[in-house]
Amino acid sequence: MSAENLKQQIEFINELDKLKSVYRQTMVKSENSRQENSAEHSWHIAMMATLLVDYVSKPVDIHRVTIMLLIHDIVEIDAGDAFVFDANQVAGQEDKEIKAAERLFGLLPECQRDYVMALWQEFEALETHDARFAKAMDCMLPLLQNMDNNGGSWSKHSISRAQVLKRNQYLESVAPELHEYALSQIDLAVEKGWLKP
Amino acid sequence: MSAENLKQQIEFINELDKLKSVYRQTMVKSENSRQENSAEHSWHIAMMATLLVDYVSKPVDIHRVTIMLLIHDIVEIDAGDAFVFDANQVAGQEDKEIKAAERLFGLLPECQRDYVMALWQEFEALETHDARFAKAMDCMLPLLQNMDNNGGSWSKHSISRAQVLKRNQYLESVAPELHEYALSQIDLAVEKGWLKP
Repeated sequence: MSAENLKQQIEFINELDKLKSVYRQTMVKSENSRQENSAEHSWHIAMMATLLVDYVSKPVDIHRVTIMLLIHDIVEIDAGDAFVFDANQVAGQEDKEIKAAERLFGLLPECQRDYVMALWQEFEALETHDARFAKAMDCMLPLLQNMDNNGGSWSKHSISRAQVLKRNQYLESVAPELHEYALSQIDLAVEKGWLKP
Repeated sequence: MSAENLKQQIEFINELDKLKSVYRQTMVKSENSRQENSAEHSWHIAMMATLLVDYVSKPVDIHRVTIMLLIHDIVEIDAGDAFVFDANQVAGQEDKEIKAAERLFGLLPECQRDYVMALWQEFEALETHDARFAKAMDCMLPLLQNMDNNGGSWSKHSISRAQVLKRNQYLESVAPELHEYALSQIDLAVEKGWLKP
């Protein structure tokens, strides 16, 4: 590797620090329910994917999935986090994220830029089994967090059962046993009044 | 996997949320220099190891290194973070972390408990090349962060050149080019008055 490559890599590593100040709607229970940031969320889902990989219906490459999850939110440094249940926030987010990917991954040396960009595009396209398992983890973790925190962001934003069911649709094909579990939790959330029926 | 296994895994995943409220001495530059927590730090070094793996002097298994870095601070949920340059804080930390590992990893189903415990112990023992590269990343990232933030926690706690040199000793054998870079940055930090000579 050249000195110029290292300089670019370090600039990118320094830039990543900014993901620690992009806040999501999900709350951190242990800290009097402050909002979670996208850096700590990325760590949490990478851990979750590692722990739940044995539930997949077809084999996945867990290293690719892990890296996909570690990088999937980096674009939010420029594009911000759009609350998935807010249609106004979601509209226009795709364009913002594509521009963000070009600028941010563009900080890297060419070979790494291409690798990271391709992995992020694969995650977004949701066509491969690796990407669908990664996405399923990204959607299931907030469900666990809200269930563990009296409804969390669901209660706060009056989210419905149908919205959460749709959000967790990929679980059914990638990890049926986890999908069954998610369904039972969604029922319980409705019963407790954390989700609208 | 059994329903009992899934219940244990989900309990562990929920417990991980607490790492987001364990605070370290390193500061987050983008957010008016608040202290960084160990969950977002774990994400950042896993990213860094992925990006800098080509500098290793001997091959490493980057997946093992990544998981090692994702789990290396989990024990801090019970044991807290000891500031590495504070001898009083470091004394007794090992015993606290061993107890923490037993309780926390003990939440997992047996096969995963053994896997995670063994990987954490390998990281702590610093005998394998994978563990030394992981540790080198764990030590080098705060150096980059402090250099990018006017001396950060070094300036705040009057840290010396010798302390940082010792802290980054593993870089020399695992990634000589990165060690050279770290040395040049340490010189620059002394010049700028961020480290005591």
